[in-house]
Amino acid sequence: MEKELLLMLPGPVPMPEQVRLAMSRQAINHRSTEFGAVYADCVRVLKTAFGTTNDLFVISGSGTAGMEAAVANFGRDKEIACIVNGKFGERLFKISQRYGRAHEIGSPWGTPVDLEALEGRLEQGAEIVTLVHNETSAGIKNPAEEIGKLAKKHDALFLMDAITSVGGDVVEADAWGADVVITGSQKCLAAPAGLAAVSVSNRAWERLCKNPPYYLDLAAYRKSASGKPMETPYTPAVPLFLALREACLILEEEGLAARIARHQKLAKATRAAAEAWGVSLFPKIDAKHEYSTTVTAFAYPDGIKDDVMRAIVKKLGILIAGGQDQLKGKIFRIGSMGAVSPPEILSTLAATQYALNKLGHKMKGDGVGAACEVLG
Amino acid sequence: MEKELLLMLPGPVPMPEQVRLAMSRQAINHRSTEFGAVYADCVRVLKTAFGTTNDLFVISGSGTAGMEAAVANFGRDKEIACIVNGKFGERLFKISQRYGRAHEIGSPWGTPVDLEALEGRLEQGAEIVTLVHNETSAGIKNPAEEIGKLAKKHDALFLMDAITSVGGDVVEADAWGADVVITGSQKCLAAPAGLAAVSVSNRAWERLCKNPPYYLDLAAYRKSASGKPMETPYTPAVPLFLALREACLILEEEGLAARIARHQKLAKATRAAAEAWGVSLFPKIDAKHEYSTTVTAFAYPDGIKDDVMRAIVKKLGILIAGGQDQLKGKIFRIGSMGAVSPPEILSTLAATQYALNKLGHKMKGDGVGAACEVLG
Repeated sequence: MEKELLLMLPGPVPMPEQVRLAMSRQAINHRSTEFGAVYADCVRVLKTAFGTTNDLFVISGSGTAGMEAAVANFGRDKEIACIVNGKFGERLFKISQRYGRAHEIGSPWGTPVDLEALEGRLEQGAEIVTLVHNETSAGIKNPAEEIGKLAKKHDALFLMDAITSVGGDVVEADAWGADVVITGSQKCLAAPAGLAAVSVSNRAWERLCKNPPYYLDLAAYRKSASGKPMETPYTPAVPLFLALREACLILEEEGLAARIARHQKLAKATRAAAEAWGVSLFPKIDAKHEYSTTVTAFAYPDGIKDDVMRAIVKKLGILIAGGQDQLKGKIFRIGSMGAVSPPEILSTLAATQYALNKLGHKMKGDGVGAACEVLG
Repeated sequence: MEKELLLMLPGPVPMPEQVRLAMSRQAINHRSTEFGAVYADCVRVLKTAFGTTNDLFVISGSGTAGMEAAVANFGRDKEIACIVNGKFGERLFKISQRYGRAHEIGSPWGTPVDLEALEGRLEQGAEIVTLVHNETSAGIKNPAEEIGKLAKKHDALFLMDAITSVGGDVVEADAWGADVVITGSQKCLAAPAGLAAVSVSNRAWERLCKNPPYYLDLAAYRKSASGKPMETPYTPAVPLFLALREACLILEEEGLAARIARHQKLAKATRAAAEAWGVSLFPKIDAKHEYSTTVTAFAYPDGIKDDVMRAIVKKLGILIAGGQDQLKGKIFRIGSMGAVSPPEILSTLAATQYALNKLGHKMKGDGVGAACEVLG
């Protein structure tokens, strides 16, 4: 029997059966009360996971479409301060360059945000701040609350990519002053890839830019969502909405707090394994930054080759992630997001431990046992 | 037992079981040879259906995203002649207004394209022509080949929306000189909504505009598609690709010519019913225009109310379409696209005939019988 690889990536992640089967349904009319109710269910649950009472829309497109919707509707011709300490921060910077005057607030990938440089840029008149809350490329969680305060102090809009934290970690869009927040379906929500959700504060609506891209025009989403039935402006990816609704109902049933606690415990177990192995975590954190709750990034010990190690793990049926772009070959990453539970993490750590051993890494101790201690 | 409504709309349309079930599969890695092969299968079959050997990409987004990709990558700051004789022509005009200097070449919805006005605009220097090949909002098929010749004569790029003709009617992108052609997944291909495909000629690549929207940047699609494995630049809607692949394999098995002949026969049967009923078809065609092969638009006989008639049909388990925007209440439309076969058309015509009768329309004859004559 051939089985699918267990995806222990920072997304896409395995989907619960109920989510997958929802997609096999026959086509339904997307201009109907039935579809409107599906959309409304998604929005209700996502608002909880975002920590917001703001408007929230679902776009048929990947997380990148959501990132662009945020920048294009609020950043055109503006001064934009883009925080970059990983690949996705860089992507927001690249998108911002297409719409406004983008300024990179950079620090090496996986190291703390340069808050001083950010404040300097705000003092020079930045009108928008972009941040990736949970930078999966480097396994670091950025201080969204503090950055939200800085943005507010200088009357800038705060656009936050929470693609890999919503539904798996604490996100408090309203409390943090995050005006526009984005998530993706295939990460902590454990739904299929292909949908992005975007929330918009009243403060942001007041500063809406003219002439956004047509497909990502958030005012059109607002207009269609306010009708009865609730609709999307263009034909939505109906099967993905049906799946997302099931994923949202699962989240609601588990409870957001319990879901976040589960993610935290799984990440803690993963870090315990790293410590036992004597393998360094990649991010350099400080008092204001944390290790990611939804993905753990490990620095490769000297002499261990990325493709060789991940091939050994893959042969055991498990896909873990390498590094992207400049981090290729330097790090490996294990996701702990979505519907993941102790068995998946334990098998992944077991396979990784076996591979590290086989490739000659001198283990300090038993990482799998250390993870069991945390999870037990 | 509750059964889904039979969707006899100009999309979305019912999907074959094999297409639906493909989506219930567990998540797979989209940066893998396996996903690359799925994408390649889609591209191979779609090129046949487009009648092109040009590059072709699949975008995770609705048909509208494909329309915008065409305009945004090739029309920025250009003089754009937009042919409008229905709602989707109007949409291309609205999108074009966001990117270039758009000029409407308008005629009343459902009436022939004003070819003289088009030629005049080309003489005044239009660099781009946009056309909806099959205008479902009005049930008219526009003379793409002739328009392609005019565009070529004046050295303009020809952008053609073939969203509701590819896979159900003759489309010959290369022979007609259509430089950029767009289709959608949920129409004649009978796949789920949420994907758009776009083909690009060499002539168009040579005139690629700078600074397209990030998510719809076709050069990024080209770069990712040229790698091994073939990829998309951003995370694709994997379940929709799996479904589209099945839909493409079904098309390949049926054979494109046979599939088009089936669509033509179903549309002919539908028109035969209209004639038997003494109900006028809505479009005003001439020697250069045709009735649509994939949707038939009927003018409501005097005194028959749209919501009342379609409610009677719906009570019999079948959803047919009304008119959109300015045609609301004036027309009704029956789709004959995708996996539709005689039983679906006959039940739809039977229910429509019953409703027309019930609402007092004086029938000339038996439309269902007339349709059987064509189909038998």
